[in-house]
Amino acid sequence: MGHDMSQIKQMSAVALRDEIAAGELTATALVERCIARIDAREAEVQAWIWFQPDYALAQARALDEAFAKGGVVGPLHGLPVGLKDVIDTGDAPTGNGCPVDDGRQPDKDARLVTMLRDAGAIIMGKTVSTELAFMHAGKTRNPHNPAHTPGGSSSGSCAAVGDGMIPLAVGTQTGGSVIRPSSFCGITGFKPTLNAIPRAGVTLQSHTLDTVGVFGETPADTALIASALFQDDKLDAELAPITSSRFALLHPPGWDEATDDLHAAFARVEAALGGRVVRAELPPAFNDAANQRAIVNFAEMAHHYDRYRKAGLDRLGPETQKAMADGAATPATDYIAALATGQAMKGGLRDVFETADFLICPAATGPAPEGLEFTGDSIFNGLWTFCGTPAVTVPIEVAENGLPIGVQIVAAKGRDADLLRVAQWLYDWNAAGRG
Amino acid sequence: MGHDMSQIKQMSAVALRDEIAAGELTATALVERCIARIDAREAEVQAWIWFQPDYALAQARALDEAFAKGGVVGPLHGLPVGLKDVIDTGDAPTGNGCPVDDGRQPDKDARLVTMLRDAGAIIMGKTVSTELAFMHAGKTRNPHNPAHTPGGSSSGSCAAVGDGMIPLAVGTQTGGSVIRPSSFCGITGFKPTLNAIPRAGVTLQSHTLDTVGVFGETPADTALIASALFQDDKLDAELAPITSSRFALLHPPGWDEATDDLHAAFARVEAALGGRVVRAELPPAFNDAANQRAIVNFAEMAHHYDRYRKAGLDRLGPETQKAMADGAATPATDYIAALATGQAMKGGLRDVFETADFLICPAATGPAPEGLEFTGDSIFNGLWTFCGTPAVTVPIEVAENGLPIGVQIVAAKGRDADLLRVAQWLYDWNAAGRG
Repeated sequence: MGHDMSQIKQMSAVALRDEIAAGELTATALVERCIARIDAREAEVQAWIWFQPDYALAQARALDEAFAKGGVVGPLHGLPVGLKDVIDTGDAPTGNGCPVDDGRQPDKDARLVTMLRDAGAIIMGKTVSTELAFMHAGKTRNPHNPAHTPGGSSSGSCAAVGDGMIPLAVGTQTGGSVIRPSSFCGITGFKPTLNAIPRAGVTLQSHTLDTVGVFGETPADTALIASALFQDDKLDAELAPITSSRFALLHPPGWDEATDDLHAAFARVEAALGGRVVRAELPPAFNDAANQRAIVNFAEMAHHYDRYRKAGLDRLGPETQKAMADGAATPATDYIAALATGQAMKGGLRDVFETADFLICPAATGPAPEGLEFTGDSIFNGLWTFCGTPAVTVPIEVAENGLPIGVQIVAAKGRDADLLRVAQWLYDWNAAGRG
Repeated sequence: MGHDMSQIKQMSAVALRDEIAAGELTATALVERCIARIDAREAEVQAWIWFQPDYALAQARALDEAFAKGGVVGPLHGLPVGLKDVIDTGDAPTGNGCPVDDGRQPDKDARLVTMLRDAGAIIMGKTVSTELAFMHAGKTRNPHNPAHTPGGSSSGSCAAVGDGMIPLAVGTQTGGSVIRPSSFCGITGFKPTLNAIPRAGVTLQSHTLDTVGVFGETPADTALIASALFQDDKLDAELAPITSSRFALLHPPGWDEATDDLHAAFARVEAALGGRVVRAELPPAFNDAANQRAIVNFAEMAHHYDRYRKAGLDRLGPETQKAMADGAATPATDYIAALATGQAMKGGLRDVFETADFLICPAATGPAPEGLEFTGDSIFNGLWTFCGTPAVTVPIEVAENGLPIGVQIVAAKGRDADLLRVAQWLYDWNAAGRG
């Protein structure tokens, strides 16, 4: 056993950004380093659905030429970014993890891809998504143990960052698809406030829930990429340390079923927070939140994925077929009542945030389970997707089985920057041996 | 026949406001005048479901005392206002036009009632609503011919203003319940931008559609009361004349079925506007708008009116029962698709408003039809309720059968003040004999 995260090799985007800005590292050299890691590890990890070294190298060379003339072109200059395969790229196929869309070539970049390119990022390739960003698993394996799931639906993005193939990646969360796989892969995953990052050009599963999120080694890394993607420019990439805050350690529905590893990790976090811990309880509307969120998810999926139904449901995996059928059979009144539950949750949460600045709860029920078919339980994630609140997971522990465990922190809508600040504090505390 | 509106006796709220402010008229004298008119006419018009002279007189006397000490207490000082019986009052019953709610006494005033009282208005009583603000008619008759419907669902509010019982009233529109009965009763009806006037404490039928609206003799009168009720204080009560604007005369779905009276009235308006008329067409999404709006309406009604279902559907009128059953049987995917149609309509409308500043279309298919059971067709109203755009109807004509006809003007969301300015211009043009 051990709590040593140092065995997990990653790349800090902030450190790389500084090296590039100082002229100590070229974009081409960084991309070559990433390519070497992918070459060495992809056969085992299977993080990529579309990857061509020349595609990334051509962008890197252009950025190096621009740097020689006038310095960095933007805050992400030369940083390789992996894109979940539900994010449209005008010059590379976007298959949505679905046989119906094999080889699909979008007309243009998603809005967020344009923002990444404008910021100087290098689009490294397309990472594996579960089928249509739902639960039917793709080929990806956990980079820390190939017999275990990487989680989903942003499987490839999390595995690629967790394996050190790339410093940054983008994904989406409708249930728990950013936070859970980040926890499983030992990285920082940040799901911002709903709609903070634009969804235009991202395959839509549920307009009420779909949230674009980002991945990196540290909270500061995710802040760096998120600040280039926020629609309202309100996220400050440079995270000053946070001072006094009140933390509520929540035991949401599902807590009792979480593993002993996870309970032990939380006990340590609670001890470390000491007097900063306050008591808070989730309002009653949260008790049935998982079911109500699923009603919204599946009904909207049945609407937005209608073209897949027309293409033939038998071409989809059983999990997707079941959800589409459930969604199609849902009465409008159940859907409206579920949305009303979401509103009641948000209302109740306002009271909770009067008592606590941040909520701490598990990112997943434990480390990544063995097997590749089941991408894990999103019981601790869907609540926050439904509420539209920002959430971040920080790798905090290595479980008995050698796989990482994250701790999830949640803030009120719009407090994204403060959330990342406190996450970085927790990350640093952990890296310093929990002093 | 004739186009003479002078036979319709009303009271201008703006003129009364000025008389009161000048000390030429007391609130008590005005209320007594209103009571006298109600006493004389109520047996025929049946506009009121709850009316007690002493209730209004007590408010008037208190306002007169306050005036003696310090002048007007607010912009609506001493002006009697009728409230549709779906608007909660803490000191008077609110029955929702429904036997299930007979004698129902709310705990407190609706937010808009508090705003009215703060502005110095006198709550005159509760006006007849159709059952639950849907289509099952109440007892009210058209003040210009008791054999004809006043329209609905804001039947009593429109009839009371149209008969000169009160200068101002408040109602709601989910389909066409502000604009259509105003046209039928020969008054100005103003349905503002969605949510401009707060809905808290108003019986909720459809959260996507329900819009609080106001009634008066002239557009300036409706601006006076609306400016006291707008949540964001953005409506200017004093209407400066509007200069150059572009008007699109629309022939929306249902135009061909409108009466000859109405077509003739429109030809005259078009001629008067002359070079200010531009060509514009509604986007294709409007073609099925009536059905799509009804899907949203009925599904949300089945949700929000669930307590009436539990109390026994057989206690409701057949129109309400049918809509509730249709709503309960609606699949969530149909509801979501209908909401998407609404979004497409709004998107297409943005292009139309690039070409035209204001849209002109009928307020109803013609004058109030004979009979009291059918409150009229909302084909020309539901479009704008669905889009959330402000709409106003101005009495413009008296039809062959002696009943009024209104013309409806529509503006882009948030352009409420400009809409009322142009409506006042049309009203003045009409009053001046269409010079």
